[in-house]
Amino acid sequence: MISVGVIGCGYWGPNLVRNFAEAPRTRLAGICDMNPQRVSSMAKRYPGVMATDSVDDMLASPDIDAIAIATPVSSHFELAMKALRANKHVLVEKPLTTSSEQAYRLIDEADKRNLVLMVDHTFVYTGAVRKIKQLVDAGQLGKICYYDSVRVNLGLFQHDIDVIWDLAVHDMAIMDFIFDSRPVSITAVGMNHIEGARENIAYITVLFENDLIAHINVNWLSPVKMRRTLIGGSRQMIVYDDLDASEKVKVYDKGVTVTNRAESMYKMMIGYRSGDMHAPQLDVTEALRLEAQHFAECIETGQQPVTDGASGLKVVRMLEAATRSMRQQGAPVALDTYELRAVAASA
Amino acid sequence: MISVGVIGCGYWGPNLVRNFAEAPRTRLAGICDMNPQRVSSMAKRYPGVMATDSVDDMLASPDIDAIAIATPVSSHFELAMKALRANKHVLVEKPLTTSSEQAYRLIDEADKRNLVLMVDHTFVYTGAVRKIKQLVDAGQLGKICYYDSVRVNLGLFQHDIDVIWDLAVHDMAIMDFIFDSRPVSITAVGMNHIEGARENIAYITVLFENDLIAHINVNWLSPVKMRRTLIGGSRQMIVYDDLDASEKVKVYDKGVTVTNRAESMYKMMIGYRSGDMHAPQLDVTEALRLEAQHFAECIETGQQPVTDGASGLKVVRMLEAATRSMRQQGAPVALDTYELRAVAASA
Amino acid sequence: MISVGVIGCGYWGPNLVRNFAEAPRTRLAGICDMNPQRVSSMAKRYPGVMATDSVDDMLASPDIDAIAIATPVSSHFELAMKALRANKHVLVEKPLTTSSEQAYRLIDEADKRNLVLMVDHTFVYTGAVRKIKQLVDAGQLGKICYYDSVRVNLGLFQHDIDVIWDLAVHDMAIMDFIFDSRPVSITAVGMNHIEGARENIAYITVLFENDLIAHINVNWLSPVKMRRTLIGGSRQMIVYDDLDASEKVKVYDKGVTVTNRAESMYKMMIGYRSGDMHAPQLDVTEALRLEAQHFAECIETGQQPVTDGASGLKVVRMLEAATRSMRQQGAPVALDTYELRAVAASA
Amino acid sequence: MISVGVIGCGYWGPNLVRNFAEAPRTRLAGICDMNPQRVSSMAKRYPGVMATDSVDDMLASPDIDAIAIATPVSSHFELAMKALRANKHVLVEKPLTTSSEQAYRLIDEADKRNLVLMVDHTFVYTGAVRKIKQLVDAGQLGKICYYDSVRVNLGLFQHDIDVIWDLAVHDMAIMDFIFDSRPVSITAVGMNHIEGARENIAYITVLFENDLIAHINVNWLSPVKMRRTLIGGSRQMIVYDDLDASEKVKVYDKGVTVTNRAESMYKMMIGYRSGDMHAPQLDVTEALRLEAQHFAECIETGQQPVTDGASGLKVVRMLEAATRSMRQQGAPVALDTYELRAVAASA
Repeated sequence: MISVGVIGCGYWGPNLVRNFAEAPRTRLAGICDMNPQRVSSMAKRYPGVMATDSVDDMLASPDIDAIAIATPVSSHFELAMKALRANKHVLVEKPLTTSSEQAYRLIDEADKRNLVLMVDHTFVYTGAVRKIKQLVDAGQLGKICYYDSVRVNLGLFQHDIDVIWDLAVHDMAIMDFIFDSRPVSITAVGMNHIEGARENIAYITVLFENDLIAHINVNWLSPVKMRRTLIGGSRQMIVYDDLDASEKVKVYDKGVTVTNRAESMYKMMIGYRSGDMHAPQLDVTEALRLEAQHFAECIETGQQPVTDGASGLKVVRMLEAATRSMRQQGAPVALDTYELRAVAASA
Repeated sequence: MISVGVIGCGYWGPNLVRNFAEAPRTRLAGICDMNPQRVSSMAKRYPGVMATDSVDDMLASPDIDAIAIATPVSSHFELAMKALRANKHVLVEKPLTTSSEQAYRLIDEADKRNLVLMVDHTFVYTGAVRKIKQLVDAGQLGKICYYDSVRVNLGLFQHDIDVIWDLAVHDMAIMDFIFDSRPVSITAVGMNHIEGARENIAYITVLFENDLIAHINVNWLSPVKMRRTLIGGSRQMIVYDDLDASEKVKVYDKGVTVTNRAESMYKMMIGYRSGDMHAPQLDVTEALRLEAQHFAECIETGQQPVTDGASGLKVVRMLEAATRSMRQQGAPVALDTYELRAVAASA
Repeated sequence: MISVGVIGCGYWGPNLVRNFAEAPRTRLAGICDMNPQRVSSMAKRYPGVMATDSVDDMLASPDIDAIAIATPVSSHFELAMKALRANKHVLVEKPLTTSSEQAYRLIDEADKRNLVLMVDHTFVYTGAVRKIKQLVDAGQLGKICYYDSVRVNLGLFQHDIDVIWDLAVHDMAIMDFIFDSRPVSITAVGMNHIEGARENIAYITVLFENDLIAHINVNWLSPVKMRRTLIGGSRQMIVYDDLDASEKVKVYDKGVTVTNRAESMYKMMIGYRSGDMHAPQLDVTEALRLEAQHFAECIETGQQPVTDGASGLKVVRMLEAATRSMRQQGAPVALDTYELRAVAASA
Repeated sequence: MISVGVIGCGYWGPNLVRNFAEAPRTRLAGICDMNPQRVSSMAKRYPGVMATDSVDDMLASPDIDAIAIATPVSSHFELAMKALRANKHVLVEKPLTTSSEQAYRLIDEADKRNLVLMVDHTFVYTGAVRKIKQLVDAGQLGKICYYDSVRVNLGLFQHDIDVIWDLAVHDMAIMDFIFDSRPVSITAVGMNHIEGARENIAYITVLFENDLIAHINVNWLSPVKMRRTLIGGSRQMIVYDDLDASEKVKVYDKGVTVTNRAESMYKMMIGYRSGDMHAPQLDVTEALRLEAQHFAECIETGQQPVTDGASGLKVVRMLEAATRSMRQQGAPVALDTYELRAVAASA
């Protein structure tokens, strides 16, 4: 049984609180927020649990094994570092940090102290994404050609990050999980339409090794909510619509076959394969519940989390590169040099 | 009554043939294709109409006032120039030419001879796009923030053009029609997954004046067909789904309002407006029928076509810039210099 | 502030508990269930609230003003009568009772004691149904021609009632709320496919005065969940899809116009009107929250609930008639005699 | 090569004309309509084909092997009988006749003369319905529990038949094709809302042997078009949506399992099985093309058509029974006696 204290009870924190309170292998041992009103409101719902507006008090408690951090991104590094130095295992909401520099330092600190550092890439723990990884790993899609995601809705505008760090981060985490190929370069274009705010719309293209192209369309100004990802392979193709209540993942037995029979000057010698569609049943366990259990298990057994510090780092590197490209109006930013650096750091 | 000869009876040509045969102001006067089998098959369906595999024979006919060209793009320029020099009015399937240079020359030739040069930007004549233009012109959307289009399906792979010239051209023509702002720069990334073929997937971002950002997602390798465009304004927003049989255009009374009331460090001082949705009834007249009538009317009255040579040119310029950006892995390509050139040419 | 005790903490009860605990005008004052495990689990979530497995203990509490009953239908009458006799105001989950006889007796008892008797016809308090009533009352639909509802999904099979009493009851409650016309006769056909269980599929047709026809399709064996109601008027028509997250109510400006111009023997002299579609914004307040507040308000002010005992009775009468018709393989059952009886009883 | 003459060129006739003209085994040999304008318009599109407003002239032609009849229902019997007596094979648009009496007589006449009598139950020849029959025949659905169809749209109002004879006929033909069970009784309720017109809305329930219940919801006054059929079996269930362009037939591996483990008084001992969904690829050949070929094949080989006179009769019998029930406000009408009669007649 792992005792977990949660820092940050804004939008996402209460979900962590609830899951650590209810998951079989964890125990909610502390609640912390800068806002005393939130602290007292959470305290009422979880009587008997330490509730405080002081991070230091919480970290000082010998009763707490691990800390989950669900504060604004800008505070992730400082809080996570503090927690590691207090010898607590740490789970950090996505994105892990605001820079890869910070991510390296957290990874190093956790390694040195033999502590679990995990990042809350929630989608990785959904039944849909786990099923997709399983299909990709089994080779059912063939060679992956593209990953194309639309993730748009009206708001929430965030004050300390732009729409890439808020929404595209999900796709980067999913891609880091399901693909073996390494991202090579990133192009991003974005725009802000509200004075004084950050980009509310952005288009990111990631080129991977092996002719895999990924594209992410994120937008806080869309009249309709969409969460739809196409994944095209040489053998089969997936449509993953996270808003489809009954069939989130559809696998299409469709593709292109190149033939040698020339027909006419108007058509390439290309044929289409079109077969059945198949929507596999998905595990509907709440992602955060699985994630809480996995966190506890990693702490108990010493195994590496699926979404460990290195995953968090790789996603932050993509976010940094996307930001840099966006500052240069879409000029491609290579990811190679970073990779060398990462190799060095992890050596 | 305008007598029209149609060159090219492949995929799109028969639609032109049918509409010129049936539209009240036009008469089908000739059918031409390099492929004798197609010629004879069309001749059977339209007995009494000149049917030939010789372009020169058709252009020599004094009975024919105008020529419609529906051949592969690579032949547009040569055929259109020939037709203009034979003193025929000309309608050319999109895109007008393979280069802006060619487009300038056609415009000049038509101007010199006082002939109508029109490009078949079919979507401009649909009830949906005309309704959208009407809403934009009436200021109902407020300031336009973005245009975001997904236009994907499985094939048709084209042998002489890539997916940008085949599919993105539609969005460029629509944007040229509905927006007053001028495009400033283009970023495009694309990829080909079939050996020896051209790009089958591409992402194009167009930055316009006045903070208008446009994005076009085109793909010949998608397991599902999608034709969906979001247009976001400061007052209202549109979802235009061309595959929705009953409600192609939906207007959402939604938006963002910036307020001065600071709430907390977790939320911007931004509010959301959310009102009714409205799906206006659309004119369901076939776009090509209206276009045929408009072509005849322009010839008869001397008025400038809505989709004139200049429109065709502006679209080809965007296509050229997109291609150039794609060759440089997404480096932004400015459109300004072209614009100056265009002004000079039209002076 | 009205103190409410809730009897029954199975599927629906916890929603009542939560809303009475959180609504501004009510206070959760007691929780009761036959199952001690449920009682203790609820007690943990609501410390400080009386929690018991004894209905008598709860009714004996002078601290409790009103009782909400969310037990199986077969126990509604006995529990509600007990509560009224203990001088508690009563809210009963739908359907009110298992027979109209029982409903009359509850109404009488509440009248005699000047207590509020309300039935939990939840849908009546949703933003969607309230908007529909508003449109109908404003005459926007014109003369109502039909109400056509499909309410199907896989399970829950209920042990003490059939699919009509479980699902069709919702449509009967909605119709009782939005229509002024009186139901005249009912036809129902149903079938059971599980040995020893009650009907899992049924089709009910209700004929109202003034040529209004209603139809309800309920099914516990459907592979997909559907909640979709068409309401056709002479001027406008509504599609109400409760599973549509963004546009639950769509109003179509469509209809039929009879003209005198005879065209041919193949067509009636009937024309179609087809105009815009409009999806009004809906209040998204939780229905049960509004209902809890309305219950408190009726108790405080003495006003008649929108879903009072008489509404509950009228719905039970329709359910009884449907059951009787179903037992006779769909023979029509008149509702008139019941009506006379109802008048007599309420006199 | 079978030479076919088509009588009736209104709404449906031109489709028959086109298919007999283009199908490989048939030749269009004649066009006939009472309306001279239609005759001349069709004559222009099919030069060289006999075109007349005289049925007698057409039947007198020795050049014509078979007659296809696409006139209003009220004239089917007379025209079909005339054609048979002129020794022509006959294909009649659905429904075969206006009474079972007439259908028996046509069957007898065709039998006596050894001619093919076929009814145009078009849906039977679609890829979707053929796939469904294949799944049902293979036992994949298990025991069939229900067939539930919604077939609604705005108009076309027909002058000589009601909405049952216009729309429900399709479902009756589909059920006759895919089910082995015999229909036992029918209940129908309908209503007309236009003065002087026939029923524009109707609900038909058909009870088959073996606990199979079928329901058909037809409506000419619906603001939206729907063509959706649920077929529930004990092992798998189908959703057939004819308006779904890409996945018309979806097979759900869902069902109910009765278990012996009693849980509580609130739940039956019933469990749900929920597995994958599967959308098989469908043959997209035009149904009428297959039907035209099948008609020719039956004439050439003497084989019995899939949709022979007996199918037409069985559908007409259901239509008659539905009409009779509707006249009695939904009183159930048994089909047994008819069946005996049918056996006698075909003996």
